[in-house]
Amino acid sequence: MSSLLVDDIGELVTNVPTPGGGPLGLRRDVALLVEAGRVVWIGPARYAPAADRRIDAGGGAVLPGFVDSHAHLVFAGDRAAEFAARMAGEPYTGGGIRTTVGATRAASDDDLRDTVRRLRDEAMRQGTTTMEIKSGYGLTVADEARSLRIAAEVTAETTFLGAHVVPAEYAGRPDDYVGLVCGPMLTAATPYARWVDVFCERGAFDADHARAILTVGQAAGLGLRLHANQLGPGPGVLLGVELGAASVDHCTHLSDADVDALAGSATTDDGTVATLLPGAEFSTRSPYPDARRLLDAGVTVALATDCNPGSSYTSSMPFCVALAVREMRMTPAEAVWAATAGGARALRRTDVGVLRPGARADLMILDAPSHLHLAYRPGVPLIRQVLHNGVPQCRL
Amino acid sequence: MSSLLVDDIGELVTNVPTPGGGPLGLRRDVALLVEAGRVVWIGPARYAPAADRRIDAGGGAVLPGFVDSHAHLVFAGDRAAEFAARMAGEPYTGGGIRTTVGATRAASDDDLRDTVRRLRDEAMRQGTTTMEIKSGYGLTVADEARSLRIAAEVTAETTFLGAHVVPAEYAGRPDDYVGLVCGPMLTAATPYARWVDVFCERGAFDADHARAILTVGQAAGLGLRLHANQLGPGPGVLLGVELGAASVDHCTHLSDADVDALAGSATTDDGTVATLLPGAEFSTRSPYPDARRLLDAGVTVALATDCNPGSSYTSSMPFCVALAVREMRMTPAEAVWAATAGGARALRRTDVGVLRPGARADLMILDAPSHLHLAYRPGVPLIRQVLHNGVPQCRL
Ligand SMILES: [Zn+2]
Ligand SMILES: [Zn+2]
Repeated sequence: MSSLLVDDIGELVTNVPTPGGGPLGLRRDVALLVEAGRVVWIGPARYAPAADRRIDAGGGAVLPGFVDSHAHLVFAGDRAAEFAARMAGEPYTGGGIRTTVGATRAASDDDLRDTVRRLRDEAMRQGTTTMEIKSGYGLTVADEARSLRIAAEVTAETTFLGAHVVPAEYAGRPDDYVGLVCGPMLTAATPYARWVDVFCERGAFDADHARAILTVGQAAGLGLRLHANQLGPGPGVLLGVELGAASVDHCTHLSDADVDALAGSATTDDGTVATLLPGAEFSTRSPYPDARRLLDAGVTVALATDCNPGSSYTSSMPFCVALAVREMRMTPAEAVWAATAGGARALRRTDVGVLRPGARADLMILDAPSHLHLAYRPGVPLIRQVLHNGVPQCRL
Repeated sequence: MSSLLVDDIGELVTNVPTPGGGPLGLRRDVALLVEAGRVVWIGPARYAPAADRRIDAGGGAVLPGFVDSHAHLVFAGDRAAEFAARMAGEPYTGGGIRTTVGATRAASDDDLRDTVRRLRDEAMRQGTTTMEIKSGYGLTVADEARSLRIAAEVTAETTFLGAHVVPAEYAGRPDDYVGLVCGPMLTAATPYARWVDVFCERGAFDADHARAILTVGQAAGLGLRLHANQLGPGPGVLLGVELGAASVDHCTHLSDADVDALAGSATTDDGTVATLLPGAEFSTRSPYPDARRLLDAGVTVALATDCNPGSSYTSSMPFCVALAVREMRMTPAEAVWAATAGGARALRRTDVGVLRPGARADLMILDAPSHLHLAYRPGVPLIRQVLHNGVPQCRL
């Protein structure tokens, strides 16, 4: 069994709280040993065991790989022209989703597979070692199933989002479409899905629809997540907490009751995380969620990209960290935690988002001495190397 | 003489206005031939001449390399802790510049050289093929001269910024320091400098100081540029236009008279460009300049990074383009023009920022079909390949 030692680490972010290390569990003068895809030892560099191979971090910071818990990668086409029109003043309504649905249905499996893998690789080069991928641009039984089948080729974190939007052929008959989602579509999706999600928003699915879909999804063995409170106030966050969703995502428009419910939920290990997606606010020129209010109330916060061709076509977790600090008043440490450990909580994973013996050897090495530089040096590709399951992803 | 053909171009941004191509001079189905570091031919791909080598752009967009006309790369140390404190609520006053001055004076030539080259290479990987580099962290005769000597090793666009801040040893004696800048410091700097610049701002140098320095700099053969109207309204923009500066940079707080003067100047070839630096507003959490107002008035606008360790530690022109669209209401085309042709205007260069026969073969190939993607895909490293003087910079 081959072993790999990472040393000359400028700063190690463990996300294991330590005295003096803060919530990021910062450590210095340490080395890290990997065997069989797992971290097996972290300790003082001078006591580092012998290893078959060595990676010199060159004084760079080493962090757990990013856990991007919200991405829509199974689609065809792009919507660059819609983006340009929106930047010239047209509002974002989510209506363009149907454009992507048409292109996705018309695409071959290989076209979809190429896009998923291209974006997955692009994200990996930017430090993302765990990525949730949703369906939601197929919206037929066959197209949702194949979307999830293709997603499952590259990630264990697959999410059935048949309830993304009511497709054109069901216009005016949302109850009928929800019946399809809860019946044959769910049955076809379940073999490939770990999670079920609903876009609970005015113009998409209301609370009754969301409750119906999530309840049958849970009965089918899927975990729950929810798009909620993005475009305006709504019932999504309270519903998610009530049903024990792992995460409610967006959280841009929250009432005090929403914040209280999330804070109450944060006291348990299987509580509901608030996942913030500032890339969406950036690319739709919308007001950002109030992360400070959530953090001050004790809510568990995650950051994710929402990577999708309509409202947030970024795969960059470093960009989301920089936005979180600039626009949502998170500290650099809070943003880094939310993009790593927070994402892991949102996916109920304990083996990623953290660096300690037993954890997956998913990590990144920065061309910078500190995690601070992810926000301090916005837009700069600072990821020098990524290990995924202990395997270096070459010079990136 | 070796020739190189770039073909399979998804979209070519020439910045040579054409009927139907808009100000970016967009062309499709064309190829581009390079010889001896210059573009020698652009024409229909099917008529492409034979060449010794070929680069397949893979359907990606090809653009002129970015021209970053404002960067402070000659320094030592970083100010990550100051950044974190500012994000926690402390205002930006520019006072931290003195921290960097102390570190820079204490650094060896090789330390400074390593930082300049590291950041220059980092910028090149993000598409920047022309980069202005300022002194301004030495602030002694010897340290300003060596800063410019080191900058001149990597760029022709060197700027003497002895008037960055009054150094501590001249506290309370700004006239004496300006005397030093106008006398022995200018004499020592001139052999290595193309430009002279002044930080004309409350707390730094006033209009009389700026006029004195720029006037003697111009007499010594240097071109003029100015940091102006960043932290509040001020005399800098009008002074720059009056003296024929190539660019006034920042332009965050402008009066109607400032805008009128810039617009009047834009009607001539040697007018004064307004260079906007949104990375500085991002990293100091300040209001952005009103690019829309400037563009609508007919002002020539450039975008640059202001790369420096205090107020904008980004080397990423793609990031600045995305910010310009999101925050300053530039269209993607206006932002791309400003980051290429606009930067060239700000440096009074006609051989870069444009792709036409005779121009330097400085260009980038995107992992995306259109220039729109630089704003549409914020934070994503989209630069697949860079040619500098016709030389591919390897896989990046
Ligand atoms: Zn989403
Ligand atoms: Zn500057």
